[in-house]
Amino acid sequence: MPLIRLLVEYDGTRYGGWQRQTNSNTVQAEIEKAVRRVTGEEVAVVGSGRTDAGVHAAGQVAVFETASDIPPEKFAPALTNYLPEDIAVLESRAAPEDFHPTRHAKRKTYRYRVLNRPVRPALKRGRVWHVYERLDAKAMREAARHFVGEHDFAALTPRSSAAEKMTTVRTVHRCDVCAEGERITIEVEGSGFLYNMVRAIAGTLVDVGAGRFEPGEIPDVLASRDRRRAGRTAPPGGLCLVSVEYDD
Amino acid sequence: MPLIRLLVEYDGTRYGGWQRQTNSNTVQAEIEKAVRRVTGEEVAVVGSGRTDAGVHAAGQVAVFETASDIPPEKFAPALTNYLPEDIAVLESRAAPEDFHPTRHAKRKTYRYRVLNRPVRPALKRGRVWHVYERLDAKAMREAARHFVGEHDFAALTPRSSAAEKMTTVRTVHRCDVCAEGERITIEVEGSGFLYNMVRAIAGTLVDVGAGRFEPGEIPDVLASRDRRRAGRTAPPGGLCLVSVEYDD
Repeated sequence: MPLIRLLVEYDGTRYGGWQRQTNSNTVQAEIEKAVRRVTGEEVAVVGSGRTDAGVHAAGQVAVFETASDIPPEKFAPALTNYLPEDIAVLESRAAPEDFHPTRHAKRKTYRYRVLNRPVRPALKRGRVWHVYERLDAKAMREAARHFVGEHDFAALTPRSSAAEKMTTVRTVHRCDVCAEGERITIEVEGSGFLYNMVRAIAGTLVDVGAGRFEPGEIPDVLASRDRRRAGRTAPPGGLCLVSVEYDD
Repeated sequence: MPLIRLLVEYDGTRYGGWQRQTNSNTVQAEIEKAVRRVTGEEVAVVGSGRTDAGVHAAGQVAVFETASDIPPEKFAPALTNYLPEDIAVLESRAAPEDFHPTRHAKRKTYRYRVLNRPVRPALKRGRVWHVYERLDAKAMREAARHFVGEHDFAALTPRSSAAEKMTTVRTVHRCDVCAEGERITIEVEGSGFLYNMVRAIAGTLVDVGAGRFEPGEIPDVLASRDRRRAGRTAPPGGLCLVSVEYDD
């Protein structure tokens, strides 16, 4: 059966994350419902990976199989039509039958937004982490360098998650900190991420910016493989899955 | 009585605009309510100008008089504490007793955001105008030049509003069109604006981008002083009052 590949944007605020669950609304379940309304089929929509409750996406990739003869590119407008206003399918196209969005993902880019000012956000609420302590972006940038490369990231994922993994070694290609007035943006690009890893990187960088860690301590934190040594987990609303890349 | 000057950010989605009204929630009324809760006083909060229903602000300026002895800079956190989550007071300070935020405003900057792609927004909904026809940003930029300078803008405000004004001549200092992928941002800076004028400029520029006007027709549109000759009024959600400047 033909495989359809989707590019999906969503505001994660109202959702219990990407992955289907019994107790809460999820983005995956909404898309499956939309497919049912468009084709009449009960399908499983498979994403490039989970995003946590409250995390957003500008470029999640997902696929599903269909026996329908709707032209692949027509699924984007058709599904969007049946989706709630906080989810939209930006593109749809035929994918090779062996394409797997999780296993074949080569690179993911996440963006974490911090609003660093005394007063809480009105316009960006739910899209940024509001940090009122003055942050030193230069120190954050210096610390970020230490996350780049192949490292064991066990210290940046919950112990219980680390225990389930074959390996906690991952490669971060890029970890940039960009400060523009009150806005600090952290962009992380990597071959794959552990559970909560990007939020733990963002939380640790904010702790560095607030002076609770020195940038030079990061290599020791990584070497410890101890979650308690790293900083806090940044809240989900600041995080956005920007893009997922594949060898095409 | 001391005058307190506020810098206010708001998401205008839920409001019937800035100005107090009988039938709908307004930003001004919310701030007046917050002042009452902080000082116990019934005050009139005066803004730099109205914003329409659904229009946002990152830097509205407003003042009120108070007999309270709360230090001026403490009003920002105190008022924000009593304001709904879509309004925040970023700064507060003492203003000279003759300061008038409307009459003394020297320059205002507005930003209008267009999302130019086939599919409706999920993440930016309520913050952008979704235009699905492909727009020619170069033509928009060329057209924008013609709005810069001192002109009679009667063609860009409703006839009934124009009729109430002493003059419909205004000076636009800057009108920039910036295109970044699917995002087109129009920034307009001027000494003052007529009712709906920025939204009419944005609507006319989008009409140029879609090929309904030639950039070279703008001078004739202005000369006509006829609202029917200009483009449509862009919807309010794309507009944000960025800043108001004063001689200090």
